[in-house]
Amino acid sequence: MTFTGKQLTTQLDADGTLTLQLNDKTWDAPKGTQVLVKVEASPINPSDLGLLFASADTANAQYSPGKIVAQMPANATRAMKARHGMAMPAGNECAGTVVAAGDDPAAQALIGKRYACVPGSAYASYAYADANMGFAVDDSVSAEQAASSFVNPMTALGFTETMKLEGFTGIVHAAAASNLGQMLVKICLEDGIPLVNIVRSEDQVQLLKGLGATHVLDMTAPDFMPRLIDAIAETKAMIGFDPIGGGTLSGQILTAMEAAASRGAAFSRYGSSEAKKVYIYGALDIGPTILNRAFGLTWDLAGWLLTPFMAKAGMEVMGRMRARVMKDLTTTFASHYAKKGNLDDMLTKDAVSMYNARRTGEKYLVVPN
Amino acid sequence: MTFTGKQLTTQLDADGTLTLQLNDKTWDAPKGTQVLVKVEASPINPSDLGLLFASADTANAQYSPGKIVAQMPANATRAMKARHGMAMPAGNECAGTVVAAGDDPAAQALIGKRYACVPGSAYASYAYADANMGFAVDDSVSAEQAASSFVNPMTALGFTETMKLEGFTGIVHAAAASNLGQMLVKICLEDGIPLVNIVRSEDQVQLLKGLGATHVLDMTAPDFMPRLIDAIAETKAMIGFDPIGGGTLSGQILTAMEAAASRGAAFSRYGSSEAKKVYIYGALDIGPTILNRAFGLTWDLAGWLLTPFMAKAGMEVMGRMRARVMKDLTTTFASHYAKKGNLDDMLTKDAVSMYNARRTGEKYLVVPN
Repeated sequence: MTFTGKQLTTQLDADGTLTLQLNDKTWDAPKGTQVLVKVEASPINPSDLGLLFASADTANAQYSPGKIVAQMPANATRAMKARHGMAMPAGNECAGTVVAAGDDPAAQALIGKRYACVPGSAYASYAYADANMGFAVDDSVSAEQAASSFVNPMTALGFTETMKLEGFTGIVHAAAASNLGQMLVKICLEDGIPLVNIVRSEDQVQLLKGLGATHVLDMTAPDFMPRLIDAIAETKAMIGFDPIGGGTLSGQILTAMEAAASRGAAFSRYGSSEAKKVYIYGALDIGPTILNRAFGLTWDLAGWLLTPFMAKAGMEVMGRMRARVMKDLTTTFASHYAKKGNLDDMLTKDAVSMYNARRTGEKYLVVPN
Repeated sequence: MTFTGKQLTTQLDADGTLTLQLNDKTWDAPKGTQVLVKVEASPINPSDLGLLFASADTANAQYSPGKIVAQMPANATRAMKARHGMAMPAGNECAGTVVAAGDDPAAQALIGKRYACVPGSAYASYAYADANMGFAVDDSVSAEQAASSFVNPMTALGFTETMKLEGFTGIVHAAAASNLGQMLVKICLEDGIPLVNIVRSEDQVQLLKGLGATHVLDMTAPDFMPRLIDAIAETKAMIGFDPIGGGTLSGQILTAMEAAASRGAAFSRYGSSEAKKVYIYGALDIGPTILNRAFGLTWDLAGWLLTPFMAKAGMEVMGRMRARVMKDLTTTFASHYAKKGNLDDMLTKDAVSMYNARRTGEKYLVVPN
């Protein structure tokens, strides 16, 4: 038995031409622990945008039905040499119905079920997934509710696990009004973890306060820095997570941590000896990171990525995280979408200019079938 | 019995006035494990300059015999609030003769000996030191030879120990023609550790090649980046140490590590998963650190400082490091000075404009007596 439909691919050529297009595709019967999922809902996360478009000029691209041709800047083209000429599928996660399964009993048991999974090729009519890497949801859970079961929930839980693994006791989170940020607010409330939320507007302050957040700071306010220092001094939040990356914010968080750690302490020319760390886990701003280094010599700035974190955390932690997501999928881990569309819709100029702007709260959900 | 002489202090007031001056001082008899050292030679290291002058405007300061009054920028004045109004002694390390000792047998045993130590107040006629924190040198070793027995040697050895502790197998070192850098070249040769040296001129390339260094790259050369990538690919040097701090170099090292790690690997939108780390251990450039983040999401940039490193490394590693410095003080760990002067000399405009420029190879040695 085979299945036919369409699959989106993104291809970057050596001359900088980026082509996204829908291709007809036939899926053969899955094997072993593989299942074939009829994709019902798949979010476009920032991590997907990096593969789909990277820094290509989507404003001046050519849009035709089922196809986009855009130009990538020369330095980005060079940096992604390893993908030149390859038509790559995309779409990290989705929910859908299992329409076929390999011989393995774990796979067979999923036939007919709605399955939340991480195929990496979810922008398609069908996608292969592994029977051991996702989870079936109750019939009462919609595909839309199950679509974002991995990237954001596991990342938000990964932050609290990272905090514990590294001996910290409170978290600073930037761009905190995002879907992920809202999950983190709820997780930290449930677990009693002090959380300092940094957002970009008074509306976002009200949004997170409405969820029960205690510390929510508008980074556009004139008293942002003194308030950040106060909040960190009060919460002892000495680990931060920043998805913006570009600009000065990561450095400002370290500066505020240093100021909070130095309060009342004797002068040291090298700064406070208290550990302070900020992880950059995204690139909402692809510009350079600028550090004024007004934070002594005891500091750490690093990249954070879900996959290596999970490898480091190990199976037991992973299993605990996944069980919690399954249990609270429609509450703590609920996601919201500003717009939905099928595979053709997602390739229109209107859709791309909306979701590729990566604005907080403006997430796109792809519903292929 | 008391001893009289002069001591240099540096004081920053709340209005930004920075005053360095020589004060008459009387030293009482030392107690317990304390010894009193008649200071013979003390280097001015970059780490001393941070306390002495920080970012004060020494070009437009008022110089009078035994006194300098300079203005500190407002932001730096605010950042150093904890030292306002305090007349702080300075001078991390020195060598001198023990002229008095506390009751403790370890202290008594040092009387009359030449002692290499870390008093933190060495820019003075005399300084108290702890009998357990330094080491006596042979009569054949001069004070000048023993003056820099701690900061640079322990830092250079600390880099190789950090490399081992964190599971790396090769080092990239920036500003590598410094006294410290020359020590690191010799240590790495002795220990068979691959080392990539980054310097700023062809003269410095020749200097380090003369010491036997294999990889020495001039960062001002047009082909610096491709050569850095090649050298890192060859040596697998995935940990770097950068005393410059400001500008783009730390980010360039991470970029070169990423390019070397990705060679021949399949494309990953998140970059290579190989650990890559750069430590900033100084501020030769006090401008902002600028990271273009062209190095995926598996990277780490952190501050490195000797004292917390030693606390983390533990007594056994520390003891091993110190024994090695004692043994090879006049060979591997030899330092060179461009100029010498007494306490009055070091406060002249000529001297300050020389040593506060922090140019590679232009180190000043203070000889108070």
